[in-house]
Amino acid sequence: MTTTPAAWLDGKMVPVDDAKVSIFDLVLVQGAAVTEMIRTFAHRPFRLDEHLDRLFRSLRAVGFPMELTRQELEAITLEVVDHNEKLIPADHDLGIVLFVTAGTNLTYVGAAEIERARKPIVCVHTFPLPFELWAEHARIGQHLVTPSIRHIPPASLDPKIKSRSRLHWYLADQQARLAGPTAGALVLDHDGNIAETSTGNFFIVSAGTIFTPSPRIVLGGVSQKVVFELAERLEIPCETADLQLYDALNADEAFTSSTPYCLLPVTRLNGRPIGSGERGPVYERLIAAWNELVGLDIIGQIRKGAAERTAKSRMAK
Amino acid sequence: MTTTPAAWLDGKMVPVDDAKVSIFDLVLVQGAAVTEMIRTFAHRPFRLDEHLDRLFRSLRAVGFPMELTRQELEAITLEVVDHNEKLIPADHDLGIVLFVTAGTNLTYVGAAEIERARKPIVCVHTFPLPFELWAEHARIGQHLVTPSIRHIPPASLDPKIKSRSRLHWYLADQQARLAGPTAGALVLDHDGNIAETSTGNFFIVSAGTIFTPSPRIVLGGVSQKVVFELAERLEIPCETADLQLYDALNADEAFTSSTPYCLLPVTRLNGRPIGSGERGPVYERLIAAWNELVGLDIIGQIRKGAAERTAKSRMAK
Amino acid sequence: MTTTPAAWLDGKMVPVDDAKVSIFDLVLVQGAAVTEMIRTFAHRPFRLDEHLDRLFRSLRAVGFPMELTRQELEAITLEVVDHNEKLIPADHDLGIVLFVTAGTNLTYVGAAEIERARKPIVCVHTFPLPFELWAEHARIGQHLVTPSIRHIPPASLDPKIKSRSRLHWYLADQQARLAGPTAGALVLDHDGNIAETSTGNFFIVSAGTIFTPSPRIVLGGVSQKVVFELAERLEIPCETADLQLYDALNADEAFTSSTPYCLLPVTRLNGRPIGSGERGPVYERLIAAWNELVGLDIIGQIRKGAAERTAKSRMAK
Amino acid sequence: MTTTPAAWLDGKMVPVDDAKVSIFDLVLVQGAAVTEMIRTFAHRPFRLDEHLDRLFRSLRAVGFPMELTRQELEAITLEVVDHNEKLIPADHDLGIVLFVTAGTNLTYVGAAEIERARKPIVCVHTFPLPFELWAEHARIGQHLVTPSIRHIPPASLDPKIKSRSRLHWYLADQQARLAGPTAGALVLDHDGNIAETSTGNFFIVSAGTIFTPSPRIVLGGVSQKVVFELAERLEIPCETADLQLYDALNADEAFTSSTPYCLLPVTRLNGRPIGSGERGPVYERLIAAWNELVGLDIIGQIRKGAAERTAKSRMAK
Amino acid sequence: MTTTPAAWLDGKMVPVDDAKVSIFDLVLVQGAAVTEMIRTFAHRPFRLDEHLDRLFRSLRAVGFPMELTRQELEAITLEVVDHNEKLIPADHDLGIVLFVTAGTNLTYVGAAEIERARKPIVCVHTFPLPFELWAEHARIGQHLVTPSIRHIPPASLDPKIKSRSRLHWYLADQQARLAGPTAGALVLDHDGNIAETSTGNFFIVSAGTIFTPSPRIVLGGVSQKVVFELAERLEIPCETADLQLYDALNADEAFTSSTPYCLLPVTRLNGRPIGSGERGPVYERLIAAWNELVGLDIIGQIRKGAAERTAKSRMAK
Amino acid sequence: MTTTPAAWLDGKMVPVDDAKVSIFDLVLVQGAAVTEMIRTFAHRPFRLDEHLDRLFRSLRAVGFPMELTRQELEAITLEVVDHNEKLIPADHDLGIVLFVTAGTNLTYVGAAEIERARKPIVCVHTFPLPFELWAEHARIGQHLVTPSIRHIPPASLDPKIKSRSRLHWYLADQQARLAGPTAGALVLDHDGNIAETSTGNFFIVSAGTIFTPSPRIVLGGVSQKVVFELAERLEIPCETADLQLYDALNADEAFTSSTPYCLLPVTRLNGRPIGSGERGPVYERLIAAWNELVGLDIIGQIRKGAAERTAKSRMAK
Repeated sequence: MTTTPAAWLDGKMVPVDDAKVSIFDLVLVQGAAVTEMIRTFAHRPFRLDEHLDRLFRSLRAVGFPMELTRQELEAITLEVVDHNEKLIPADHDLGIVLFVTAGTNLTYVGAAEIERARKPIVCVHTFPLPFELWAEHARIGQHLVTPSIRHIPPASLDPKIKSRSRLHWYLADQQARLAGPTAGALVLDHDGNIAETSTGNFFIVSAGTIFTPSPRIVLGGVSQKVVFELAERLEIPCETADLQLYDALNADEAFTSSTPYCLLPVTRLNGRPIGSGERGPVYERLIAAWNELVGLDIIGQIRKGAAERTAKSRMAK
Repeated sequence: MTTTPAAWLDGKMVPVDDAKVSIFDLVLVQGAAVTEMIRTFAHRPFRLDEHLDRLFRSLRAVGFPMELTRQELEAITLEVVDHNEKLIPADHDLGIVLFVTAGTNLTYVGAAEIERARKPIVCVHTFPLPFELWAEHARIGQHLVTPSIRHIPPASLDPKIKSRSRLHWYLADQQARLAGPTAGALVLDHDGNIAETSTGNFFIVSAGTIFTPSPRIVLGGVSQKVVFELAERLEIPCETADLQLYDALNADEAFTSSTPYCLLPVTRLNGRPIGSGERGPVYERLIAAWNELVGLDIIGQIRKGAAERTAKSRMAK
Repeated sequence: MTTTPAAWLDGKMVPVDDAKVSIFDLVLVQGAAVTEMIRTFAHRPFRLDEHLDRLFRSLRAVGFPMELTRQELEAITLEVVDHNEKLIPADHDLGIVLFVTAGTNLTYVGAAEIERARKPIVCVHTFPLPFELWAEHARIGQHLVTPSIRHIPPASLDPKIKSRSRLHWYLADQQARLAGPTAGALVLDHDGNIAETSTGNFFIVSAGTIFTPSPRIVLGGVSQKVVFELAERLEIPCETADLQLYDALNADEAFTSSTPYCLLPVTRLNGRPIGSGERGPVYERLIAAWNELVGLDIIGQIRKGAAERTAKSRMAK
Repeated sequence: MTTTPAAWLDGKMVPVDDAKVSIFDLVLVQGAAVTEMIRTFAHRPFRLDEHLDRLFRSLRAVGFPMELTRQELEAITLEVVDHNEKLIPADHDLGIVLFVTAGTNLTYVGAAEIERARKPIVCVHTFPLPFELWAEHARIGQHLVTPSIRHIPPASLDPKIKSRSRLHWYLADQQARLAGPTAGALVLDHDGNIAETSTGNFFIVSAGTIFTPSPRIVLGGVSQKVVFELAERLEIPCETADLQLYDALNADEAFTSSTPYCLLPVTRLNGRPIGSGERGPVYERLIAAWNELVGLDIIGQIRKGAAERTAKSRMAK
Repeated sequence: MTTTPAAWLDGKMVPVDDAKVSIFDLVLVQGAAVTEMIRTFAHRPFRLDEHLDRLFRSLRAVGFPMELTRQELEAITLEVVDHNEKLIPADHDLGIVLFVTAGTNLTYVGAAEIERARKPIVCVHTFPLPFELWAEHARIGQHLVTPSIRHIPPASLDPKIKSRSRLHWYLADQQARLAGPTAGALVLDHDGNIAETSTGNFFIVSAGTIFTPSPRIVLGGVSQKVVFELAERLEIPCETADLQLYDALNADEAFTSSTPYCLLPVTRLNGRPIGSGERGPVYERLIAAWNELVGLDIIGQIRKGAAERTAKSRMAK
Repeated sequence: MTTTPAAWLDGKMVPVDDAKVSIFDLVLVQGAAVTEMIRTFAHRPFRLDEHLDRLFRSLRAVGFPMELTRQELEAITLEVVDHNEKLIPADHDLGIVLFVTAGTNLTYVGAAEIERARKPIVCVHTFPLPFELWAEHARIGQHLVTPSIRHIPPASLDPKIKSRSRLHWYLADQQARLAGPTAGALVLDHDGNIAETSTGNFFIVSAGTIFTPSPRIVLGGVSQKVVFELAERLEIPCETADLQLYDALNADEAFTSSTPYCLLPVTRLNGRPIGSGERGPVYERLIAAWNELVGLDIIGQIRKGAAERTAKSRMAK
């Protein structure tokens, strides 16, 4: 097992290819699971504490009776990373995924198994960061499209819970791709406020101030918080606000933050350029500060990593 | 394998205990799957055609590019049932589950695997009907509670799609159970209209007419349609309408329909009796007609099956 | 003036090229006008009565104090048609447009002109039907897209008023065209119900029944009413209902009705085929019945007219 | 032309009485235009830069492909003002109006003219400020009424776009005038928050702080911004907030800001006095500071100008 | 007590002037009471059964544990009427009022009195019908105005419960009276649908059909049901529908039904005439049929009764 | 009367047991009244000024034409307290209640009495604080439950008006009690934001900051304001925000403020512990500061008072 990636699943380490979940588990039956995604920089988890904090916030919101303590979960995570980081190139990095399910579907197993049914399954696994998926966006920026699908309102399922009931995101991105194969959805809430994308928090820059949607309707991003910190360090004012399409179409810049890719520019919205239609100066300052924070050229790693991974996969064919 | 239940998963038959799905599949990652639940009567699937119709409607709504034809899917379903029905008592029955996932999460596997990523996985499995879960409800009726959680609005994720992004249902039932361990949620939509329960369609009887919520906000139940047919046969008027708590609290009777248990009375709502607080005459006529339709005493099977299953599980301990 | 098209504007006939409205009029300042569009078949206005009925309904809803009687307006309309129909090919037809403005903007002219300010201006003009705009849709069907923009709710500005405050439609179609230059918007209301397109009423066919959105949220189309009549004559059931994307994606057919083009098939929705992805049998029966009603091959006229107009405009260059 | 006011329309200067727009233009057909209103003080445009900024924000929001640069538009504006300011009394002032239309209605002109159809028309004109319309409001304050009509929600047509699709405003003011011929509408949004009037931004003063509705639901007024600046200079705290009728009925003072009249008190709301029912001290301080800013007695000009204009119009009869 | 009107209050008959309720009762503290209003024709209660049905529906919706049976309540009502009808002129009639409170406010009396606190108080009283309040409306019709206040949504407090928490109605009528001292409010719901007036159900007549708002958002009126019955007898089609201002402004007639006055025309809406602006033919047919049903000239009684009561009250001064 | 508590009602002092209101008054008929609740500390009214301020804000919002001046009302209040404080133990305290009704129901009394009908009735009374109702909550904290009932939206009846139309609160608490006899409702608004409880304002503590719902949707509590002041004095940051269930379930502490009991901890929400599930440190600091402010051990008084009152009421039996 030392040459294949491992995952921790329901109490033990297994090769990731064997990391499979019973079709009776509620994560498959109801999307009833909470989750986190973390990444490494230079093979070390970034902001693991904050991600565990958020996982436990999600758990409190859904009320799953997980038995693992936070300390145990942290240790498991480090163990999985420790094993898997050796299997990727030294200058690549890992995405780390945790999820906790609601247990087994009682209807399938019957009352006799009620104790098993109530027992959450925990999984920790990793994946090599897929730089090639972000290389174009890093170069020319993302094209976001506002689909007709609205964000699920907090009174139904709070977007602050990082859950695995996210089919609406699949459908939203599908609508966005009508505008092109790499376009992504920027979802509005039921009042027409900009919420988020399927992978990250959204920001605009307007007259020197960074704005990001109100925490009421979006996931509280760990990377979003990094942006707040870097902005403070750079003395760029940063506010949360109810933003609408008007604001974004009139922004000087826009970008999204997300754990695996950190920060990517948004240069088009509904087919129209944002600002100059190119990466903007605030983006550049933020990503430079982020590079400094983690001691690594994030965009450089994406470019180089993408090329290497693409070359390797071509050779494999 | 002849003595253990089988499931059809991603192209082949496997023992159900081995029917597991990779943690990279979108059904686990996003709840991105559509599903059906069917049941047998006397070991033969009931209304298989209508369930397959609905599965394909869900598929068209989500746009997964499944390769299996309807005929193939039907054949697989029959094969799975054929294998598994021999493993349960002759007078018990099976629940049959189908699900189709959106494929593999591209972020985990990278662009090199895009073709695999786009390929849905199909699963067909069964489970012995868990009569013991319904025995009390069959006897004294269900207690439903309206939670603060609202149904997901169609503009976010249409409840007419039978999907596996249903964490809100888990949370709604959790709230309902504050009123007692067997209470269930009767979810309202954002306008306060009664929608459905986590397992079935809701009906009230008022002055001799059966009412069920507008199709706009609920799953189009196959069992709901059976109720429509039986009502027509029995010459009981049956209408869809926007119903509110007021209507349900003032109903003469209430019940829910669902594939595995067919029809169960609702005798309490938010702690208060509905009508007489007991099974009502319209319920009795409908279930009698349903018994006749399928040549089986549905409630009798629940009672007897529950007792047998409970005894057996006690012995196993 | 006998060789150039005429328009009736504010009390007199003028060449249509001179039919211009002061920049002080409220139709320019606030979009404060109500309107109608009629068409001829064989150079005679179709359903003029019903269009005038609807114009007067719009007028009652907005309360403009127009002085012209219905009889006068009808006479003017016929006079304009009479003049202009001679200027188009015998087998082409005219669109006829009426609009009534709210008067002059008081702020621009001051209190001294308050009487002028309160006086609506009336205009009646025609245009040769632009068949070339519909030829592709008639052949392969329309591609409709649901934009993120929502229909204006009746509590703000009732869509049953045929008004000239329609910038949201311009923006909705702009979003739809992200999916292709000839795609059009199918707008949802704030509850996610399908409303209408910028030019017409929307219909689906499902299991042999025609459905069209509830009158609550759409313009009461004169052509929509023709569809109702033809369906009745053909004994095809026809109902109004709250429809959602799910219903349309699962329809057997879809089409839109609109005064100038009558009835055009919708064969794609959000990039996915509706039904077979081709003109459907109910559409064919309806358009055949419509042809019979008006004694003219509507789609044939579109095809032939489009070719002729395109050829002519090429020669003009 | 030196003795009659001029307008710049679609590329050239014309006498304002000849400034007319074809009935085929989308500003008439759909209210598809964006606009600005500026005023002069002592015959010089006030905050021209900010108004042009906002016009270009509106243009980016609607996506019209206007060819004129900002510099050109500014030059044209100044030229029009230069010409027209000579034609009004030295101590009166001009309103300046800009609008840009979406082009010509393709349906009327056919595909052959698609290039013309896509070409926006630009207009710049002026009007002598109609002081007599504001004299009573300046003296005794405005009476505002909340109509049943709701503001158009941003998800349909963003009120931050200064557009010419404003029929709902016409209807809202009509409802307000049920309470008296000079009453005006104070429109609420769909959540019951106070938005704005048809002509200006709304402010209340409560316990020494000025509040104005959240930017989410109102036009970002240039005069509103002047109020912010003056308040800062006067050290009066000033905040945006979600305000409701309760807040306004309990305010110490209220007023509205608007480009042509700057700042007018609101002394009655739904028939009840606000505060003392008279012009309040914060209003007085703000208007005094505004006078100072522009070197002109704004209210004095309204009073004197109104008297002169009324006398003149009487003589003309 | 034979010469003064009596009321039944909390277990005994008292002179109506002594019929007072403790300031500790929840009807005063929370408006926590349900109620009915009935009237007599020729001194006999009309549709007493249906009113009692509705009272018990309200009681089931609010869950007050009233101890009186329906039979007892009916007997009390008849006894009160029996006593009081002798005290009014033979050709006048009585309004009859029932209400049931939620009991006593526990906070005021403390836990020691919890049993008293939970005990509802019942009251039955009458009043001579105040014909003078309706005489003008009977002659020239009502003027209704749509206020900015919205109906309370069913998810907050269902309008189908006839309760005594109705301050919003007081405020709505207050807004309506801005248009004149006898104008009344026609309240819209949060979607802009017409709901009802503070005293009755609203109807329009359009092309020969009577429409009244959907039961979802209005009190199920006993008089409304009489209209349904009379319409059926007269073979006038009658439907419930989602109606908006547009529909009412374009109606041929409108009227309201209410227990005490039965049916009164609505001839103006937001300052504009409905239909001819006078009592319409459908209204005349319905009121004639109603007269026949009850053997009494309802409008004649209003006119004559109003004159007599006014004369008498003048003499008393 | 010196040995029985007195109330001031409609112009004169009466024994509180005789303080009764006519069944014709609009407070009974429509819940049409505004109200205040004040309490004493050491027999002296606390923050009387602020409560009178709020009463007059409510009055301005509803427009009742009360004739009493604020000074008169204050004097009456002090007189009532002065009389009644002698009748309770020295270390107990009084609740003080004021209410102003809308007058008499015109329909019951007829046009002859219109002047009486328009005349509000004013009442001031007291009650011994019912400590026993809060003792358990003071010890182990409150259990709050989010019911399906939504707060009445401001556009229908503003929660900032302290009114007596509150049946929805009765129903909300009824739903909450499904979770246990002492559970209380924490009501959400129509967007799923946490609003308030039937008796008080809600607060959470998160990472050292106190948050309380936005003033838009809750009563502006006088005790809430005390919390703001104490927090400022203690240098605990305090903010208003849109809070959702997620935030409350993840809070470190929660509590409610209300005039009669000041501040009580909330330790469970929907059956789950908040924070440690016990009284938290911020609560302890705030209540300690409050004790200091009023020179009285508030929770000690509740405990001791509860015991004494319970003992006394047992003896009385």
